[in-house]
Amino acid sequence: MDYSRIFKPDSVAIIGASRDETKRGFRAVSTLLEERYEGAIYPVNPREKRILGLRCYPSVLAVKEKIDLALITLPADKVLNAVYECGEKGVAGVIIIAGGFGEIGNLGKSKEVELVETAKKYGMRIIGPNTSGFINVGINLDLVGIKDVPKGKIALLTQSGNIALHMITEAKLKSMSGFSYYVGVGNEADLQFYEYLKFFADDPDTNTILMYVEGLRNGREFLKQAYNTTLKKPVVMLKSGRSSSGKMAVGSHTGALAGISEVARNAFRRVGIINIEKSEELFPVAESLSSLPPIKNNNVAVLADGGGHATISADTLTDLGVNIPVLSAETQKKLKAILPNNANVSNPVDVAGGTDSDPGVFAECAKILISDPNVGGILIAGLFGGYGIRFAEKLKFAEEDAAHRMGKMVEKYKKPIVLQSLYNFAKPHSLDLLRYYGIPVYDSLDIACKVISSLSAYGIYLDSYHKKTNFVMKWGAKARKKGEKIIEKAYLDKRNVLLEHEAKELLKEHKIVVKSEKVVKSADEAVNFSKGKPLGVALKIVSPDILHKSDAGGVKLNLKTEDEIRNGFNEIIENAGKYKFEPDIRGVLVSEMVRPGTEVIIGTKFDDQFGPVIMFGIGGILVEVVKDVSFRVLPIQKYEANRMISEIKSSPILDGVRGQPQVDKKALVNLLVTVSDIVEAYPQIREMDLNPVILREDGFDIVDARIILNEP
Amino acid sequence: MDYSRIFKPDSVAIIGASRDETKRGFRAVSTLLEERYEGAIYPVNPREKRILGLRCYPSVLAVKEKIDLALITLPADKVLNAVYECGEKGVAGVIIIAGGFGEIGNLGKSKEVELVETAKKYGMRIIGPNTSGFINVGINLDLVGIKDVPKGKIALLTQSGNIALHMITEAKLKSMSGFSYYVGVGNEADLQFYEYLKFFADDPDTNTILMYVEGLRNGREFLKQAYNTTLKKPVVMLKSGRSSSGKMAVGSHTGALAGISEVARNAFRRVGIINIEKSEELFPVAESLSSLPPIKNNNVAVLADGGGHATISADTLTDLGVNIPVLSAETQKKLKAILPNNANVSNPVDVAGGTDSDPGVFAECAKILISDPNVGGILIAGLFGGYGIRFAEKLKFAEEDAAHRMGKMVEKYKKPIVLQSLYNFAKPHSLDLLRYYGIPVYDSLDIACKVISSLSAYGIYLDSYHKKTNFVMKWGAKARKKGEKIIEKAYLDKRNVLLEHEAKELLKEHKIVVKSEKVVKSADEAVNFSKGKPLGVALKIVSPDILHKSDAGGVKLNLKTEDEIRNGFNEIIENAGKYKFEPDIRGVLVSEMVRPGTEVIIGTKFDDQFGPVIMFGIGGILVEVVKDVSFRVLPIQKYEANRMISEIKSSPILDGVRGQPQVDKKALVNLLVTVSDIVEAYPQIREMDLNPVILREDGFDIVDARIILNEP
Repeated sequence: MDYSRIFKPDSVAIIGASRDETKRGFRAVSTLLEERYEGAIYPVNPREKRILGLRCYPSVLAVKEKIDLALITLPADKVLNAVYECGEKGVAGVIIIAGGFGEIGNLGKSKEVELVETAKKYGMRIIGPNTSGFINVGINLDLVGIKDVPKGKIALLTQSGNIALHMITEAKLKSMSGFSYYVGVGNEADLQFYEYLKFFADDPDTNTILMYVEGLRNGREFLKQAYNTTLKKPVVMLKSGRSSSGKMAVGSHTGALAGISEVARNAFRRVGIINIEKSEELFPVAESLSSLPPIKNNNVAVLADGGGHATISADTLTDLGVNIPVLSAETQKKLKAILPNNANVSNPVDVAGGTDSDPGVFAECAKILISDPNVGGILIAGLFGGYGIRFAEKLKFAEEDAAHRMGKMVEKYKKPIVLQSLYNFAKPHSLDLLRYYGIPVYDSLDIACKVISSLSAYGIYLDSYHKKTNFVMKWGAKARKKGEKIIEKAYLDKRNVLLEHEAKELLKEHKIVVKSEKVVKSADEAVNFSKGKPLGVALKIVSPDILHKSDAGGVKLNLKTEDEIRNGFNEIIENAGKYKFEPDIRGVLVSEMVRPGTEVIIGTKFDDQFGPVIMFGIGGILVEVVKDVSFRVLPIQKYEANRMISEIKSSPILDGVRGQPQVDKKALVNLLVTVSDIVEAYPQIREMDLNPVILREDGFDIVDARIILNEP
Repeated sequence: MDYSRIFKPDSVAIIGASRDETKRGFRAVSTLLEERYEGAIYPVNPREKRILGLRCYPSVLAVKEKIDLALITLPADKVLNAVYECGEKGVAGVIIIAGGFGEIGNLGKSKEVELVETAKKYGMRIIGPNTSGFINVGINLDLVGIKDVPKGKIALLTQSGNIALHMITEAKLKSMSGFSYYVGVGNEADLQFYEYLKFFADDPDTNTILMYVEGLRNGREFLKQAYNTTLKKPVVMLKSGRSSSGKMAVGSHTGALAGISEVARNAFRRVGIINIEKSEELFPVAESLSSLPPIKNNNVAVLADGGGHATISADTLTDLGVNIPVLSAETQKKLKAILPNNANVSNPVDVAGGTDSDPGVFAECAKILISDPNVGGILIAGLFGGYGIRFAEKLKFAEEDAAHRMGKMVEKYKKPIVLQSLYNFAKPHSLDLLRYYGIPVYDSLDIACKVISSLSAYGIYLDSYHKKTNFVMKWGAKARKKGEKIIEKAYLDKRNVLLEHEAKELLKEHKIVVKSEKVVKSADEAVNFSKGKPLGVALKIVSPDILHKSDAGGVKLNLKTEDEIRNGFNEIIENAGKYKFEPDIRGVLVSEMVRPGTEVIIGTKFDDQFGPVIMFGIGGILVEVVKDVSFRVLPIQKYEANRMISEIKSSPILDGVRGQPQVDKKALVNLLVTVSDIVEAYPQIREMDLNPVILREDGFDIVDARIILNEP
C-alpha cells in the first residue's frame, strides 16, 4: 500500500481540538502553528467556532477539502465514532492517543478490535492507540508537541514516549544529528513495526532506523521486512523487558531450554539488525551509522595520547569482536617519523607526548592510518579537544584545524573516525567541528568502542549478505506426495501425532537415511526380522493410544536370542493392556540396534512470535542439565546449521575427544537443513523431535522420531 | 612502617630542578609555588644558584634541614647516584620519574634492583620508577603538575598517568567529588599496591580508594591487605590487560582450564573489592561510594517519569543482581494519594505525568519511598533537572527546592539516592544542588544503575563479612606428624612426588576416609587381599619411575577371580619392565573396586600471582570439553566450598538427575575444605590432584590421588 498520505499528509484534522491551554487538543493545534506545518489544519470540535484563529468544524464530515491524516485526542469512549466519521470522510490514517484499549485487558482488547475493523472497512489505517503521536520533521508536522526536533536522517520508532523524548533530547544536547520521523507505535493495533520498517526502507529522507521495542506483535513478519530493510539502511534496536516478561514460558521440552530472548537475538543478527543492550548506546550507534560509512574489514586502528586509554580501548574492542591488527612496517615507519622515540606505533598507537605541543599531529597520524589499506576505521581516544584547555589556550586553533582535516579525510577515504574525548563535557569548539563533519564524539570510551564495533558489524553484515537466509517459509514447496499422504492418513485417523514408523517414513521421503525396520504383528515375524542382525533388535509398541512408549513398558532393547525376542514381544503386548484399557495396538516396531556413537538431539517447535524454530544439542546431561543448546528461527541453510553446531560449548565432543573419532559433521549439517526443509514442506507440522540421533564417523542413525501436527 | 614522612612530608627536594620552562624539573618547582605547598622546598641542581626565587643546592647533602621526600626528575643513568645521596641524607622516600628500568627488559630490571637495594640500606622507600608522580591534595603537594586537583576523600592509585588525568578531569567537569591523594605506582619496584592500600586504609583524609591496575606484583599480599582495607572503606578497581596479557599460560592440567582473570575476579570479590569492567563506570562508582551510604538490603525503588526509563532501569538493575521489590500496600497507598490514577506505584514507580506541573512531587515520592523500611535506596530516572528547560522556566525553582529536600533526606535516612537525568549535559542548577548533597547525577542510565548496584554490593559485603575468609595461609599450623614424615621420606628418596598410597596416607591423617588398600609384593598377597570383596579389586604399579601408571600398562581394574588377579599382577610387572629399563618397583597397590557414583575432580596448583588455588568440576567431558569448573584462591572455608559447588553449570547433577540420587554434598564440602587445610598444613605441597573422586549418597571414594612437592 501507499503510505504517503499517512506519513506525508497535505492536510491534518485535529479531532478534539480545544481552546483550553492545558489540553492536548489545544497543544496539537498550537504546535502545528508554531512549528509552521506546511499543510492544511482542520480543528474539529462541535462546541467551538474558531481555535487559534483557525475555523473549527463540528465533524470531519463537515470539512469539504480532502483530509489525509487525523489526530484523535478524544477520550477512549469517543474514539470509535471519530474513527467511523474519518472512514466516511475518506481519511487515509488516524492517530489515536487515548489509552484504555488492548493494554488494559480483554475488555479494552475487544474495543480495540472494533476500531481496527471499522477502519479496515474504509481501507483506513491506525497509528496507536495508546501512542504519544507522530512527527514528520521534514514538513514540520509535529503531532506530539516535543517542539524543535532536530532535523536529520534518523527515523525514530518507539514504544515509549519518554524514550523518544530521551533520544531527541540527546540529539539536541550532544550531537549534530537529527530525525526524519518519529512514530510512537503504541499498541500496534493496526499498523505494526514491520510496516513502519517497510515505509522507512524506501523513504529518501531516512538513512537509519532507530527502534525501541517492548514487544513485537508479529516477529516473523518483522524479520522478513527487516531482512529487506537492512540491506538498504542500518536498523538499530533496543529490545527491553528482559527481566520481567522477556522469558517465554513454553510447554514443550525443546522450548523450555531457553528464553525467547536468545532465539530473538539470533534471528535479529541474521537479518542484520544492530542489537543494543544498553540504553546509553542506542542513540550514539544510530547517529554514527547515520553519519559515517561502515567498516569493511573489521580492522580498526586505535590512536591515543596515553597508555591507559590505549590498553582499555584494545581490551574493549577485542571483547566486542573487533580486530586491532599490527600495522604494516610502512605505516609504522611513517608514524615513527613524526612521533617521539618512545611512542608505540604498532597498534594501539600511543603518541606518548608527541601531540603535547601540537595537537595537529593527531590529524597527521590519522592521515597515515586512514590511508593504510588494511585499516578500516580509526578510534581516537584521550584528550583531543582539551589541549587548548589543559596546556595552552592557543593550541585550540591547532585542534580546530586538525578537526577540519580529519573531517575531510573521512569524506575522502570513506572510512569512519570516532572520538572519545575527556573534554567533551567542556564543549570545546573543535569537537563541534568534528560533529559538523559527521564524526561523533563521546565522553565514554565504552560508547566510542561500541560505536566502532557497530560500524564494523554492519559492514560485515553487508559483506556477507546473501538472499538465501531470508525468513520466508515457502510452505509446501518442498513437500513430497508420500509425505502428504502420511499426514493425511493421521488426520483421517483422528490423530495429530505421527506414529514413530510414520515419522521415519516421512524423513525417508526427504532422503534421510533411516535403518530398515518393520511393524510386525507377531513374535514370529519379529524373530524373522532379527536374522542376520548381530547387534540384536529393539521392540517398540505401535499404538496411537500410547505416546510415551517407555513409560508404558512398551520398549525392549538389545534383544538377541529368539527367546529374548519372543518374551519381549509378549511382555510389550501385556504391558500395553495394563497401561490402558483395550488399547488400539497396530503392532510392534522391530528395528536393528544401532552401533554406539555420540548422541545428539534435534527438535523443532512453533514459537508464538517467530513461528517454527529449531534446537540442537548433545544428548543427556549436556542438554538436560547444562542447557548447552543452540536455537534458530527456521528456515536455515548450511551456514547457520554449521554455526548451530559450533556454538554449543560441548561442540569439541563432535570433533572427537578422549580417543573417540570425529563424527560425520557434514551429514549432521545436512540433517539439520533437511529438518528445516521438512518443516517448510508441511505447514501441518507443529513439532518434531529426533531424539536421540546417534552420530558416528560415517553418518548417523535416528533412534526415535516424533512429529506432532497442528490440530486439523 | 610509618609512611607519614613520605605521604605527608614537611619538606621536599626536587632533584634535577631546572630554570628551563620546558623541563619537568622546572614545572615541579613552579607547581609547588603556584599551588602553595605548605612545606619547605629544596631545589637541587649543581649548576644553578636560585630557581624561581628559591635557593638551589648542589646536592641534597648540602641541605642542612631535614628532607622528608625527594622527587628525582633526572634521566635514568643519573638516578642511582641521587638515590644514594638521598639515603645518606636520611630522606624517607624518593619518587623516580624516569623510565628505562624494569619495563624495558632484563638490563633495566637489574638497574631497578640496584636502586631498590641501595634504598633498602638506608630504610628509604621508592615510588616508581617510571611514574607520573605523587600528589597530596590536602597539603597542596602536587609533584605531577596536573594543577587544581579538586579536593575530596578519594585516594587515586593508578598505573597510568593518563587514566589519572582522566579521573581528575572527570571529577572537575562532572562532579563535586575530589581526591585526597594521587599515587602513580609506576613499576612498583619497591612500594607496591598493597602498601599504598595499607596506608590509605588508616588515612583519615581518605574514605574511598580508586585503583587502575595493569599488573599486580604480589597478588596474595594484595588480597590480604585489601581484606583489611575494605572493611574500613570501599576499594574500587579496574583491572585492564584482559585481551593481550590477561590470560596466564599455565602448564598443569588444573590451571589450563581458565585464565587468571576468573581466579582473580573471584578473589577480589571475596575481599570486598568492587570490580569494574568498563572504564566509564570507574569514577562514578568511586564518587558515589565516597559520598553516599551503602545499601543494606539490596532492595531498590525506581522512580521514573515514563514507562521506558522504568522498564530499562528494572532490566538493568535485575541484570546487575539488585532486587526491585514490590512496594508495601501502605507505601503504594501513599504514592497513589499524590500521583495520577494511571501512575504505576508498585515498583518501578512511573509517575505518569504526575510531576509535569510540579517537579516537587519527585521529592514527595522520594520521601515516601525512603521512609519505607523495605527500601534500601532509590534510583530516580528521566527528566528531573529538565522541567525548567522543557516545560516552563519557573519550574526550575521547584526543582531546586526538591533537590534540597532530597539531599536532606539522604542525610536523615542514611540511604542513597542516585539520579539519571536526560538534562545533565545542559547543566541545570538543580543538579548541581543534588551534587552538593553528595547525590551523583549521570546522563547514562547504565552508569546510574551500576552505581546503585555497587552501593548494594558493598553493603552486602559489609553485612556478610566475617574474619574467617582472610587469605592468610597459616603455613604448617594444621600439619600432622605422620604427614610431615611422609613428605620427609619422599625428599630423602629424592622424589618430589608422593606415590599414590603415600598421598592417600596423608589424606587419611586429615580424617579423609580412604578405602583400605595395600601395597603387595606378590600375586598371593593380592589374592589374599581380594577375599570378601565382591566388587573385585584394582591393581596399580607402585614405582617412583612410573608416574603415568595407565600409560605404562600399570593399571588393571575389575579383577574378580583368582586367575584374573594373578594374571593382572604378572602383566603389570612385565609391562613396567617394558616401559622402563630396570624400574624401581616398590610393589603393586591393590584396592577394592568402588561402587559407581558421580565422578568429580578436585585439584590444587600454585599460581604465580596468588599462590595456592583450588579447582573443582564434574569429571569427564564436563571438565575436559565444556570447561565447567570453579576456582578459588586458598584457603577456603565451607561458605566458599559451597559456592564452588553450586556455581558450576552442571551442579544440578549433584542434586540427582535422570533417576540418580543426590550425592553427599556435606561430605564433598568437607573434602574441599580439608584439601584446603592440607595445602595450608604443608608448604611443601605444590600441586594435588584427587581424580576421580566418586561421590555417592553416603560419602565418597577417592580413586586416585597425586601430590607433587616443591623442589626441596
